[in-house]
Amino acid sequence: MTQPEAPYYAVIFTSTLAVDDPTYAATAAQMEALAAQQPGYIGFESVREGNRGISISYWQDEACIANWKSVAEHQAAQHKGKDHWYQSYRVRVAKVERDYEFNA
Amino acid sequence: MTQPEAPYYAVIFTSTLAVDDPTYAATAAQMEALAAQQPGYIGFESVREGNRGISISYWQDEACIANWKSVAEHQAAQHKGKDHWYQSYRVRVAKVERDYEFNA
Repeated sequence: MTQPEAPYYAVIFTSTLAVDDPTYAATAAQMEALAAQQPGYIGFESVREGNRGISISYWQDEACIANWKSVAEHQAAQHKGKDHWYQSYRVRVAKVERDYEFNA
Repeated sequence: MTQPEAPYYAVIFTSTLAVDDPTYAATAAQMEALAAQQPGYIGFESVREGNRGISISYWQDEACIANWKSVAEHQAAQHKGKDHWYQSYRVRVAKVERDYEFNA
């Protein structure tokens, strides 16, 4: 992803899956592709280990986050997540104030 | 972890390992235990998938983050990380402004 200057926003999504459902990964990939088309999208990082996952999407500002949350296909996925896929999750909206990187 | 009211801070650490070294996991576990003893520690979440990882530590404020970064054993682990373990990483310091959870 193209790394912007801080400040920008991170939506931290930590989840535990209730079921081992192959449709979950397909929907997650669709949502990642759809997020990338939204205004203010910066990037996406996701790691899964068994039934636990951390996914972080990065956005220019809070209005862009609100827009993405309201996209119809995303709303449908959120509903299916609550009804079927997730045992639990937590969403944190955070303002990235500074960042730095290391490359060997 | 005990979930505080926002605002609080998140240190988002996304990394790619360069080597498959069993001492890495042991040191990571030691650092997690040591972080939990520091002032202002709230919690820790970490997920690894192959050589990619996302680890997030949560803190009361930026002073607590600076303290943890400076702890001698943590400094030693950071140096070994740069010299040996990591191909690359990025650290983002972010202020959690709001959060919500779902439990099935």
